[in-house]
Amino acid sequence: MAEHTRPARGMRDFLPDDVRRREHVVGIIERTYRRYGFEPLETPALENIETLTGKYGEEGNKLIFKVLRRGEHEASGETDLALRYDLTVPLARVVAEHRGKLPRFFKRYQIQPVWRADRPSRGRFREFYQCDVDAIGSTSPVVETEVCSAVSDVLQELGFRDFVIRINHRGLLRGMLETFGVPSALHDQALIAVDKLDKIGREGVRAELGARGIGEAAAERLLTAFDHPTASARPDPASHESMITWAREQVGDHPEGVAAVANLAEILRLCRSTSAAAHVTLDASLARGLSYYTGAIMETAVPDLAGSLGGGGRYDGLIGMFSGESIPACGFSLGLERILVVMGERGMFPASIGTGAADVLVTLFEGEPVEDALRLAADLRTGGLRVEVYPEGDKLGKQFKYAGARGVRLVTVVGGDERASGQVTIKDMKSGQQSTVSRDGIAAALLALIAES
Amino acid sequence: MAEHTRPARGMRDFLPDDVRRREHVVGIIERTYRRYGFEPLETPALENIETLTGKYGEEGNKLIFKVLRRGEHEASGETDLALRYDLTVPLARVVAEHRGKLPRFFKRYQIQPVWRADRPSRGRFREFYQCDVDAIGSTSPVVETEVCSAVSDVLQELGFRDFVIRINHRGLLRGMLETFGVPSALHDQALIAVDKLDKIGREGVRAELGARGIGEAAAERLLTAFDHPTASARPDPASHESMITWAREQVGDHPEGVAAVANLAEILRLCRSTSAAAHVTLDASLARGLSYYTGAIMETAVPDLAGSLGGGGRYDGLIGMFSGESIPACGFSLGLERILVVMGERGMFPASIGTGAADVLVTLFEGEPVEDALRLAADLRTGGLRVEVYPEGDKLGKQFKYAGARGVRLVTVVGGDERASGQVTIKDMKSGQQSTVSRDGIAAALLALIAES
Repeated sequence: MAEHTRPARGMRDFLPDDVRRREHVVGIIERTYRRYGFEPLETPALENIETLTGKYGEEGNKLIFKVLRRGEHEASGETDLALRYDLTVPLARVVAEHRGKLPRFFKRYQIQPVWRADRPSRGRFREFYQCDVDAIGSTSPVVETEVCSAVSDVLQELGFRDFVIRINHRGLLRGMLETFGVPSALHDQALIAVDKLDKIGREGVRAELGARGIGEAAAERLLTAFDHPTASARPDPASHESMITWAREQVGDHPEGVAAVANLAEILRLCRSTSAAAHVTLDASLARGLSYYTGAIMETAVPDLAGSLGGGGRYDGLIGMFSGESIPACGFSLGLERILVVMGERGMFPASIGTGAADVLVTLFEGEPVEDALRLAADLRTGGLRVEVYPEGDKLGKQFKYAGARGVRLVTVVGGDERASGQVTIKDMKSGQQSTVSRDGIAAALLALIAES
Repeated sequence: MAEHTRPARGMRDFLPDDVRRREHVVGIIERTYRRYGFEPLETPALENIETLTGKYGEEGNKLIFKVLRRGEHEASGETDLALRYDLTVPLARVVAEHRGKLPRFFKRYQIQPVWRADRPSRGRFREFYQCDVDAIGSTSPVVETEVCSAVSDVLQELGFRDFVIRINHRGLLRGMLETFGVPSALHDQALIAVDKLDKIGREGVRAELGARGIGEAAAERLLTAFDHPTASARPDPASHESMITWAREQVGDHPEGVAAVANLAEILRLCRSTSAAAHVTLDASLARGLSYYTGAIMETAVPDLAGSLGGGGRYDGLIGMFSGESIPACGFSLGLERILVVMGERGMFPASIGTGAADVLVTLFEGEPVEDALRLAADLRTGGLRVEVYPEGDKLGKQFKYAGARGVRLVTVVGGDERASGQVTIKDMKSGQQSTVSRDGIAAALLALIAES
């Protein structure tokens, strides 16, 4: 039977302890993004298939879950809908659709699952939550800076101290590629290959560059550039200047490259006045797979996790694909699952998350009216307590045992004597002590016991 | 272009004001269910297709969104995954999978979207949130009572006073159907037809009963029974006894029917000691479409909305379909979208939900360093304020205008004079007043202005 009860491949069930940890992290992310003036947005899980296709590059397209048409069309095998692959393309669609209703600078956060038919592995699932923050409507480097600052605040509030935010620029990459002699038509191919430097190493990338049609000389220059120490530099504002100088040398007088380096220099400079100061660094090897980025690109990581905790960048062309009108945009996406993996391994969850056990178990006493127990539970809940009613007429010992196993600390008992005298007996499972209080004062007495500890 | 920016048919985008209203309702539901000792659970949107098929009856099966196999299998048109259709079947799967880890009485709530390829109409969408609460592991009528009480508390906390919770029992229905002479094999058919009494009326149901193969005599008895005043009775504890008497007459000495009536009588009696007291009523015409219910069934509605706000019941056989071991269960599902529709029409959202506008807009002053504005924003955020930084070097008048349009009340300005004297000017967009305070005291001054109003 077991195989029929597992979730689908690459998907997970979240039991109560899992959900509480997720809610802890999501709560911090939401509060932080709200402090920055970002507002919540939600979009449907299913999009028209045309909305998604052609936005994520060749490899992305293959990973989209597609939904079969229904009814009479089901047998055709045709698909008309697809599951959300990221939160950026739906945002672009929403901005194009609702432009008139939205403020000129629309700042939104969005925390929802996305689905990708990737091969599952540690920390990589087929359903995972992205926590996105995006600012629409401005090309100012203040936007990139605020985004990096908000992400830094989130990670610091979660308890991370050792994260690095690597920054690069598509214009710098393009400037380098053209200066190195990679034909325009092969830029995406080159970037896809170079993006794998971490995974398959220098020779792996060289082979892949060749396979993707890039000449040996260009490949050599690419590898020389992308193996530069910037790739592994620690964030250190003192080193920014030499890194910018190096980048400027790579692009020579390539106009887009020169502008990109100036933009990066400004973002790095402004970041020094924010909480991102000790975390940002230039990394010319950063490429980011998605094809919609046009300007600065960012990625954040911690040393003990292969891959990133999240990434983002500027995508000034994407909304225009939907609206016809060019609208600048920049954002960052944090991966909830990766954050949870690292926080779990490092023991970063505070004890205050709790076990979820109720504060009080109201027992049923044999021969006593169940209604009285229900009324007692109602009064305690009105008093602000989390109350579970034991549903069956089991022996009291079994009910106590259940409270112990569940981690419920306080148990109430109303037997015939108590009822006759208008009282309730409280058993404290932690101290083992019993006390009897008046029915009227029971909520206050239980709250006092909880407050004491 | 417009058609490319709309969400898919029957799906919706939720802009910030929508999300805030949804979060308000979801927050109350979560808090209330937690007070009852329910714990959060989440399951994946995609399930293996076999998990869902055969659980929702013939009509349900057609409404499941199916996902195409990927890669080399894509061309086959075969499907292997399907989108969650409700939260109950995934719960049953989870309970079967994790039985050893879960408490004997597992009480969970789950608030997630489900997908159904229904024809969209007012308040009916293809993606919608269900807010489910279920108690696993006990056949006690305390479970049904607590579920009705929790749902009543939720609706009352949301501000509803006029809701009715109609209760029926599959055993009563089965007892009536058999007593009336409907063959067992046609029970589901009869229930599907009778469930439409509200929608297509007595003669419509009669025609449908005939079309579904039910004889005229049985159909007449069915219609006589289901047109009984209980169908429209107001909840009134005084009437429960006569309704129970009537129900007992319908089933004669049919053993399952007799047991069902006794169970209903006990649930109604216990509910009188809970917040559901003024809301529950027996309604023998209630059938509920889903095929997995085995015992009591419930539905809640308000007068000004066709259809229900939610429903549920006991399903003692469903978990066993996954685990092989019979495990009793009972739950209730509230429909978030329906609740929002009624709350919107009745103006039930409190003003405290807010507009989402930031507390403060930090302006950029021409010629002054942007870094100073970023540092000011950081300090204000640390002070607990929600702060937006105007990203571009526009004229100050334009920045004020933006603050006004966004509904941001307080604006900070640091020009050359202010910077020289270590001060910040505050403009209150509501009163129009300006004041100048020291840079060190700015957060406190802004918080004081907000607290004043």
